[in-house]
Parts: sequence; C-alpha cells; structure tokens
Amino acid sequence: MINGTAPPKVRADIIAAATRVFSERGYHAASMSEIAEIVGMRKPSLYHHVRKKEDLLFAIHEQMIDELIDETMTVLSSSESPSEKVRGVLRVAMSFVARHRDGVTVFLQERSAVSGERWNELVVKRDFYEQMVSRIISEGTASQTFVEVPPAIAAKAVLAMANWGYTWFQPDGPLSAEQVADAFAAIALRGLETRP
Amino acid sequence: MINGTAPPKVRADIIAAATRVFSERGYHAASMSEIAEIVGMRKPSLYHHVRKKEDLLFAIHEQMIDELIDETMTVLSSSESPSEKVRGVLRVAMSFVARHRDGVTVFLQERSAVSGERWNELVVKRDFYEQMVSRIISEGTASQTFVEVPPAIAAKAVLAMANWGYTWFQPDGPLSAEQVADAFAAIALRGLETRP
Repeated sequence: MINGTAPPKVRADIIAAATRVFSERGYHAASMSEIAEIVGMRKPSLYHHVRKKEDLLFAIHEQMIDELIDETMTVLSSSESPSEKVRGVLRVAMSFVARHRDGVTVFLQERSAVSGERWNELVVKRDFYEQMVSRIISEGTASQTFVEVPPAIAAKAVLAMANWGYTWFQPDGPLSAEQVADAFAAIALRGLETRP
Repeated sequence: MINGTAPPKVRADIIAAATRVFSERGYHAASMSEIAEIVGMRKPSLYHHVRKKEDLLFAIHEQMIDELIDETMTVLSSSESPSEKVRGVLRVAMSFVARHRDGVTVFLQERSAVSGERWNELVVKRDFYEQMVSRIISEGTASQTFVEVPPAIAAKAVLAMANWGYTWFQPDGPLSAEQVADAFAAIALRGLETRP
C-alpha cells in the first residue's frame, strides 16, 4: 500500500510519476530512483511513502478501474435506452483512453506483475466492469431492441473497440475521442439493433 | 539479427524459448540466461547465434506480422464477397490469437523495445495489415454492400475485436476461436452491411 499518512498531493504526484515511468519504460525496467527523481524526492523519502514498486503498480491499476467503473455506472444508472447506453459506454471508454494514455497503457500492458490477493481484487473489478456492459446488452435483447447475441461476447466486442484505442488514438489526430466513440457506436449499434 | 548460419531448427527453438520467456516475464525482465537454459544451451553458445536480446524481440515481431499478413492475404485475394472477407479476416485473426498466445502477447505488449530503422520496418508492415482490412471495407462501400463508414476506423473496430482476444480467449473455453470469430463477424457485418 501507499502509506495512508502521505498527504493526498504527495500521493497523487507519486502515482502520476510512476504512471509515466511504467508506461514509458515498462514496469520491470522502471526504477524507484527514476520515480523519486521526477517527484523531486530522495529515494529514502519515496520509500517512506511506498513500501515497494509493486504497490505503485497496484495503486495505478486500482485508480484506473475504480474511475472507469464510476463513470460507466453513471451511464448504466441513467434512464436512457440500451442503444444510448452502449454509445455512452463507448464515449466513456474512449474519453478515458484519450485522457489517461499512460495510465491505460500500464493498466492494459502490465497485468502480470501484480500478484496474489490484490490481483484477485483487480480481476473482480475488471469482471464487474465487463458485466455492466453485458447487462446493457442483455437488457437490450430482453426488450427486443437488440438481437439475440451471447452478451459476454458482444460486450467484449464493444469494449475491445475502445480499449484498443490506447494503441493508436492520438488526441491531436483528425477525430476527437467522442467522434471515434460515435463511429464505433454506429457500427456496434447497427450490429446489435433489431430491424423493424 | 539472429545469425543466418544457425540451423533452422536451432533458430526456431531459440525464438520459441524467447517468445515464452518474454511473454511470461516481460521483455525487460527476461534474461538471455533463461532463454539459453530453456533451449538447453550455454549462454556463450546462445550469443554465438544471437547478437543481443533486442534481436530476438525483433525476430518474434517479424515472424508474427509476416505470418498474419500471409494468411490474411489469402482471404484478401479470394473472390469472396466483402462480407465473407471480413468474416475471413476475423477467423484468421482469432485463430492466430488462439494458436500463438505467447507470440501475440509479445507482439502486442512489447512494442516500445524495438528501436530505430527496424522498428520502422515493423510499423510499415503493421500499417499494411490494417490497410488490407480497410481496403475490404472500402470495396464493400463502393459496391454498396457496406454503408459509408471511415474505412480506417471500421478496420480498427473489426481488428480490435480479435486482437483484444489475447487478453481473454482460452483455447479450452466454451467457444472455439472460430465460433468467437463468427460471433464477432455477425455483429460487425450487421453493423457494416447496407439493408435492402
């Protein structure tokens, strides 16, 4: 754990520095010295707040998935149609990828280094996130808005479009995150919606 | 480069061992000693065939993208309809993910460690692969089989579904790679095809 007594600003700075270093150099190659240097701390001071490098990786994973679940929950709990919810999920996910490029890179690429009990906790949250999307699709099928599809596979198809964005999306590219999300939603929704 | 004089079997064994070690431990954390041990060589013998660790990473990347392009080219050059070609691309990609789990993990996760000229070569091939898929979509739009969509974005949506499979697909899971590909194709094709 990151020491609970660290002031929030210090904690946020440490996590931001770790996110950048892990994303640029990879978790295994990254050193606590580099992170300390970016934060402007000496290494022993960093170790005062953080017990070990893995704790930083866990903190990044947790922050990413918690924020993503939180934003997606807003979409899920709205009174919109299943189609609008799918569009909303894609907008949240693409905007997340655009805003948190380094964090998402760490979140998606550095899965194997968090171990044991804490990794299980992250898996439960990742599964929950996917289940939120599966549930929207099941609701759509139940209300005959969407065709019969295996909801878990359809959820993976929808989320893959946005997740994959971390490998190519450029915030200064020709399309905004919202435009890309809407293009994906257009394909996914034509693919899922029943036809009158 | 992996030394051109290495017998093909030795070369294949070295690449297979490196693929496993890079996938399991990450490229940066992996050591040449581990790779030598799996191949049953002493480290100096390995260095006789391989100049440096990065050469192995490049060889894996090159092997993956060359094989993927080769198999996808078969789909592209067939006389099938654009819809069947999209289904074919997804089948090739999912089957590739299922057969080469470790190789695809290295291919998709370890992008940043190949440097310079050789990296550019890989980027050109990756772009070519995506362009093959964009072209199928453009052909579909031109023949009014598919709706008007930005072909590059639609190609990314289609490929993301399969690429993302490396994070979750289990060869011993409830659906085969082909069944998953066909479920994805069903969503993507309903999404892309014009309606009579």
